[in-house]
This record gives sequence, C-alpha cells and structure tokens, in this order.
Amino acid sequence: MLQIKKREKRELPLAPLERLLKRCGAKRVSENGVKEFASVLFEYAYSLSAEAVALAEHSGRKTIMESDIRMAKRKERV
Amino acid sequence: MLQIKKREKRELPLAPLERLLKRCGAKRVSENGVKEFASVLFEYAYSLSAEAVALAEHSGRKTIMESDIRMAKRKERV
Repeated sequence: MLQIKKREKRELPLAPLERLLKRCGAKRVSENGVKEFASVLFEYAYSLSAEAVALAEHSGRKTIMESDIRMAKRKERV
Repeated sequence: MLQIKKREKRELPLAPLERLLKRCGAKRVSENGVKEFASVLFEYAYSLSAEAVALAEHSGRKTIMESDIRMAKRKERV
C-alpha cells in the first residue's frame, strides 16, 4: 500500500472534481464523497506516475514522454 | 469509447500533475507527457464518476456519498 500524506492527497483541487460528478448526472455530492473521489484519483495518479517513471528509466531516459504514460496506463488498467 | 471534449480534458490542472510525476522521481517531463497524464486521469475520473452516479441512483439517492465512490472504484479497478 502506498504511503500518502494528507497534504499530498489535497493536491488535486476539489472544485473541478465536483463539477465532473455533476456533469455525469449527480444532483448533489456529499463533502466526503468529493474527498473520497479526489483520494481515489490521487491513488491512481500516483501509481500511474510511479510506473511511468520506471518505464522511462528502463528506456534510459530522464524525461517522461507521452509513450511512458500510455505504457503505464496499459499496465494499470488491465 | 467516451466522447470527451478538449475543453473538458483540460479541467484537471497540469501543474500539480507535473509535480506529482517529479515527486515520483521524474527528472524532466515532456509537455505531451503531462498532457497525456492529465488525459488518462480524466478518462479514469469520468468513468469512476459515471459509475458512482449510477450506484447512487440504484440506491434511490440523489446525493453521491463516499460509499458510492468506493463501490465505483471496486468495479473500475478489477
């Protein structure tokens, strides 16, 4: 399990996430609902990010490219 | 496949995402790398969100609760 600090979890701003939920048809969203949404997204982002960094290193690069993200996604979603 | 407009994709701000990649060990990140990262996250967020809305409706609620997000995540990640 990833160790995620509280401060880090809040790096994804809540307002756009609540808007997204509403655009998907939510009439109302509880405060904890939005926070949990942010937390789940952050966890996914963190895991995707770590995989992309490993893939770039594996290719002998120091720069994360679009292809690293795509390859990382492939692993994450399967 | 989800129909996502360009404007919507940009709702997740790029700066915190680039910071996250760097915290995971990235030395540099290409511009398209960050954009792809945002796009992948948005796709996941959209899908999670739609599932949470369906779950709340299924329970006869108009408010998205923390438990809807958790249940949606369960489906998404398996």
